[in-house]
Amino acid sequence: MQTTAIASTTSMLRVMNERAVFAETFRRGAVSRPELAQHTGLSKPTVAGALANLERAGLLRQVGLRAGAAGRSAVLYEVRPEAGWVFAVDVGRSYVRVALADLVGRIAARKDEPSRSLRARDLVAQLTGLAEELAESAGIRRDDITLAVFGTPGIHDKATGTLHLAPNLPGWNRRGSVERLAGIAGRTYVVENDIDLAAVGEATYGLGRGVRHFVYVSVGTGTGMGIIIDGKLYRGFRGAAGEIGYLPVGEDDPLAGEPAARRRGLFESVASADGVVAMARRLGLTGVNTAKDVFDAARAGDALARRAVAREVDHLSHALAGITAVLDPELVVLGGGVGSQPGDLLTAPVAERLRDLVALRPPRIEVSTLGTDAVLLGALAVGLNDARDLVLQSAAAAG
Amino acid sequence: MQTTAIASTTSMLRVMNERAVFAETFRRGAVSRPELAQHTGLSKPTVAGALANLERAGLLRQVGLRAGAAGRSAVLYEVRPEAGWVFAVDVGRSYVRVALADLVGRIAARKDEPSRSLRARDLVAQLTGLAEELAESAGIRRDDITLAVFGTPGIHDKATGTLHLAPNLPGWNRRGSVERLAGIAGRTYVVENDIDLAAVGEATYGLGRGVRHFVYVSVGTGTGMGIIIDGKLYRGFRGAAGEIGYLPVGEDDPLAGEPAARRRGLFESVASADGVVAMARRLGLTGVNTAKDVFDAARAGDALARRAVAREVDHLSHALAGITAVLDPELVVLGGGVGSQPGDLLTAPVAERLRDLVALRPPRIEVSTLGTDAVLLGALAVGLNDARDLVLQSAAAAG
Repeated sequence: MQTTAIASTTSMLRVMNERAVFAETFRRGAVSRPELAQHTGLSKPTVAGALANLERAGLLRQVGLRAGAAGRSAVLYEVRPEAGWVFAVDVGRSYVRVALADLVGRIAARKDEPSRSLRARDLVAQLTGLAEELAESAGIRRDDITLAVFGTPGIHDKATGTLHLAPNLPGWNRRGSVERLAGIAGRTYVVENDIDLAAVGEATYGLGRGVRHFVYVSVGTGTGMGIIIDGKLYRGFRGAAGEIGYLPVGEDDPLAGEPAARRRGLFESVASADGVVAMARRLGLTGVNTAKDVFDAARAGDALARRAVAREVDHLSHALAGITAVLDPELVVLGGGVGSQPGDLLTAPVAERLRDLVALRPPRIEVSTLGTDAVLLGALAVGLNDARDLVLQSAAAAG
Repeated sequence: MQTTAIASTTSMLRVMNERAVFAETFRRGAVSRPELAQHTGLSKPTVAGALANLERAGLLRQVGLRAGAAGRSAVLYEVRPEAGWVFAVDVGRSYVRVALADLVGRIAARKDEPSRSLRARDLVAQLTGLAEELAESAGIRRDDITLAVFGTPGIHDKATGTLHLAPNLPGWNRRGSVERLAGIAGRTYVVENDIDLAAVGEATYGLGRGVRHFVYVSVGTGTGMGIIIDGKLYRGFRGAAGEIGYLPVGEDDPLAGEPAARRRGLFESVASADGVVAMARRLGLTGVNTAKDVFDAARAGDALARRAVAREVDHLSHALAGITAVLDPELVVLGGGVGSQPGDLLTAPVAERLRDLVALRPPRIEVSTLGTDAVLLGALAVGLNDARDLVLQSAAAAG
């Protein structure tokens, strides 16, 4: 019952009513005028006015009739899918993955390709080409794209237009470099940490659906964590929440604080794919070039590989023990090349080991079912949410 | 503009209006009828009706007149302080601290005394006596107390009425034992983890005021952390968020996972007051019985004591590095007997050490200014918030 005493102009009210009707139509799919009146609490004439405006602006369309209770038929409305377009991008270390989706989230086109180069200029050129290509194959122009969402490593510092903690993206720590992304597609763009987006992807389309507090932990070429609290992404004070590469978990004496810890973070230096290979070699295993090689050898019964994997289980268990001590999540979703190793080589021993390390029963630990699509799907989820507001704003400005 | 289509009865509306008027009066102290109408958005007759009801129920009172702009005077209303009473309790390991405050948060009486025994029956008897004593000295009856808030170690499991992870409170892990607290004072009671309450105390009255994301880290006889995210207490999935005693930070090889880790948590076993004394003795220091003895000896220049303190700095730095990697808080408030050691023996070296261990600049680290009152003040803050709702509900039920 508390309202601030701002004189509401007629046009403000109109926009708010249209927003309510639009949001309700999104939620319900195909919906009739009486249903909208019932669920928004708005009067039928107000709903009718909002529907007319939204239809004229091309945001909604009539989709058919539904037989009413009293034998009368009601016109059904739905969101016009092509009223907005989202360009979602996962800027990985070696691959870029892109998708173009309409306003109701249907992916019209997608493509994964190796990154030509991660320098800002080259990457912008590659992504602009991909936006053009996807737009064409969806039958729209690149200008029709409402907004673009970029998942990148590191932390986006809006004040300086730079990325922090993204050593794999050379040159992106230069002032204003992030702003180059503006020209790729859409009226506006969003830059978000890739692992944070993966957590949003899990919350929207994956194992995190309906889970109030959970974390997405990625262990691959790097390490990272996205935190969902009360269903929403938690970023921390400077966007650095979940930078678990810096957890003080490592070989032998973590208190020694080797220089590697400073450059890269102690946990990441031992637990990422490189760390697994280095450990295996230190133990005397030969002929392994990737973490997958080590896991394959362990699965085939090689004793040295099994010892290397056991160390990885130790590292990951201790990281998860620390995360659990701090956050007490309901669920840990594991992703990344190492984290999503199939079979019982990692997840089961980690869950078992964790029992000795945590206060209560350990959280559920499950391997992501979204795989390498988690970041892209998170970018899509964030983009769809923002696009719905943007198309309404445009319609309001035009109307 | 979205409202759910529930038929609002006149009495529901009345209660909601009264709630809005009551909340606004709390916020503003002494306030006039026109001001209330302006700030709640309610009509003047509605405000007048709500004021009359609230005054009749004894929740508000007239407090004087203020000269109006047009030369007319407006009657001012304020919350009647004695309309509700909160009994706040900190059940410490060796002390119980209690306070009785009126509805506007003024402490009418308080007392600290050594715990006679922490067994449920003895503690309930001692606390009932204290409630009686404080009520008498405030000039009210124990029955006048609106609610009691208990800060205790461990995690309150409402389903079973037990406390988990509170080994210092013998017998409280028995089914239904927590329910014995119901008879001490007030119509209802709240049980909350003591360190979580201390964090709420810091957020309301201490260094955390106005800080969006911060943690309160206590290192004393035990270790613990309260987490404030977006200004609100974050408890985790099972109330076990911040159980940092279980951080995998310890001597030499934390990967070894000694049995102590299981019983008590690795970090707590090395970093709590006992751990400091044990370390000092292991290093060869004699004649120390408490952590304070060790810090005093270090301050006096004893080389062995300094080495023991240096190990504590290591432990605390690594714990804070882990906490920062996960949460990226803006501020760390340190409390507890060890954590709030004055001087530069702990805080400054920890801040310095942390620079090598975290991704970005370390968070601010400051020693609590609330000292041993943090838990009690947190209990008060929680109690006042709940009491305001409770007195309104009573008034509505009676009216």
